[in-house]
Amino acid sequence: MRAEIIATGAELLTGGIAETNSAFLSEELLLLGLVPAFRTIVGDSEQDMEEALSRALERVDVVIVTGGLGPTEDDITRKVAAKIGKRRLVLNDDALAAIKSRLSQKGRKYPSSTDRQALIPAGARLLPNPVGIAPGFYLDEGKALLAALPGVPKEMEAMFAQGLKPILTERFGGRVFIRRRVLHTFGMSESDVNMAIQDVLKKRSPRLGLTAKETGVDVSIFAGESSGALSQTLIEKTESAVRKKLGDVIYGVDGQRMEEVVGALLKQRRLTIAVAESCTGGLIGARITNIAGSSEYFERGVVAYSNTAKTGMIGVPADLIERHGAVSRETAAAMAQGRPIVKKIVALGAWGGA
Amino acid sequence: MRAEIIATGAELLTGGIAETNSAFLSEELLLLGLVPAFRTIVGDSEQDMEEALSRALERVDVVIVTGGLGPTEDDITRKVAAKIGKRRLVLNDDALAAIKSRLSQKGRKYPSSTDRQALIPAGARLLPNPVGIAPGFYLDEGKALLAALPGVPKEMEAMFAQGLKPILTERFGGRVFIRRRVLHTFGMSESDVNMAIQDVLKKRSPRLGLTAKETGVDVSIFAGESSGALSQTLIEKTESAVRKKLGDVIYGVDGQRMEEVVGALLKQRRLTIAVAESCTGGLIGARITNIAGSSEYFERGVVAYSNTAKTGMIGVPADLIERHGAVSRETAAAMAQGRPIVKKIVALGAWGGA
Repeated sequence: MRAEIIATGAELLTGGIAETNSAFLSEELLLLGLVPAFRTIVGDSEQDMEEALSRALERVDVVIVTGGLGPTEDDITRKVAAKIGKRRLVLNDDALAAIKSRLSQKGRKYPSSTDRQALIPAGARLLPNPVGIAPGFYLDEGKALLAALPGVPKEMEAMFAQGLKPILTERFGGRVFIRRRVLHTFGMSESDVNMAIQDVLKKRSPRLGLTAKETGVDVSIFAGESSGALSQTLIEKTESAVRKKLGDVIYGVDGQRMEEVVGALLKQRRLTIAVAESCTGGLIGARITNIAGSSEYFERGVVAYSNTAKTGMIGVPADLIERHGAVSRETAAAMAQGRPIVKKIVALGAWGGA
Repeated sequence: MRAEIIATGAELLTGGIAETNSAFLSEELLLLGLVPAFRTIVGDSEQDMEEALSRALERVDVVIVTGGLGPTEDDITRKVAAKIGKRRLVLNDDALAAIKSRLSQKGRKYPSSTDRQALIPAGARLLPNPVGIAPGFYLDEGKALLAALPGVPKEMEAMFAQGLKPILTERFGGRVFIRRRVLHTFGMSESDVNMAIQDVLKKRSPRLGLTAKETGVDVSIFAGESSGALSQTLIEKTESAVRKKLGDVIYGVDGQRMEEVVGALLKQRRLTIAVAESCTGGLIGARITNIAGSSEYFERGVVAYSNTAKTGMIGVPADLIERHGAVSRETAAAMAQGRPIVKKIVALGAWGGA
């Protein structure tokens, strides 16, 4: 079964706004065994929206539209969804009641344009909005299921999880059982990783993929078998084959960040950390403290950017800097071993983004 | 004139990779007067790709495909572009020579699969790759222009700027003159900005838009008139109306970052800066030093994360922290006025992301 995600809104095409809903939905659909085949972004022209929706309904089994459910004139999803199926728009009493109650909870006025948000195509089922105003809906249109969700990510995510996901699971779940594992590596180039695991990469099932990111190369393992256990076993066998080849280069899995792993190790060993940074300008400290609970192990940091600062704050000998340069193994080592600012300084070189 | 951008690659649909090329191209096309009407992401299935390309060629004037130009089996853009126009794929001698010379410059071997990258559809014109291996191409297909660019962003951007942009300018330029101005604000909520400039926002031309980002609210002004001067005048008039309402809240324009503006002001006044950070964990220093040439004014920083560090490194009295808490106006002020680590400490509170 295949799906298409359509995001609507002029600001997504020309406003420099990143469209993030489709990535969330792709991930969720995939885990239900629904393969995302197309993603489309379209503006708020009725004609273009109609074109995008009709095409989608012809080529996949599930079409999810995000956005265009607001109260203004350029919110056209309801209208276009109705038009395609030659349906009327009908005022949904449950939707209207929910909107009124939500607005009065928030102590906001009830402008007349709000009524428009309670309209849904005849024959559609309501998807309540657990966190915002605009309700969504879904309906069968031709061979496909068409669903409309709000564009605001937290509303869309809540409505998907509480409303649409159970329906998709009931209808499409249980055919293919997708499992995925992503191994995050650091310090090896994409072609070196490729070379190291080329035997495993060649396999058809599970499918492997390499992705080079700023933070390192990811190895994804992807299985879609007729049972969850089968997919899981395949993933585990392949993961251990990859780990045998790559070893310590793998620092985390499934979205774990380096700073999370470092934090967990420090907590586990009851150690604290301080950083002495130079070129990174504070980025290492910023990343370490970006983890909830980091105050348990992060004590302090210094950013010794100028040479004077390196000498004055951490006691790196001026002649050492002069001999080897500020950006050198020797200066970095002297920064790490320099005048202690807590019990022990752990200096990490240029790590990540900088 | 309208455009569609098609990004191809299975990893864009299911790999959790953000697709960034379309945003770059949308912006560029818009400035040429080509309005992006659709963006499509499609995997590496030949059938889906053919469907996406044919639809696009029917509904817009310019179709740009990114990705699928590499040397492997799943790089199908060449093949599909040829198939749609019932063209043969022909080996382009210039492309082949360029690939060979690029690989030998890099001291890399020339694998036989590389030849495939020098194939382009018969009748297409070559777009050389200024920074990588895979060449691109463009051709007239039906009523539309179809161009294929690589998926790697820096290759795509260079090829667009040096190869495709001049061609699009020659063909489509000079009909509508789009000008845009983005004013970056800090410290006001979206609804407050909306309230403050509501009279200006209502205008039809130039069109205004508000976008709330992590770093603040952007006000975009967008004009598309029959001459550049006309568009420009409209933008300037509107900008000054907005500035009258918002004043100092606007810190920069057209993508300028806060740290760029701060850096320029420091340079101009021949001042240096040091930072004393707490919750931001080094992020302020990281952002300031992320600007080229920042070593001219950034001297050093301390990250006094624990209370001991606040007392020991910057001399914030322990009883003051106890009385007011670590996250308080009083502690922040004491950090700013504390023991000088250069001539003057400028402490910036929680600024931006943290």
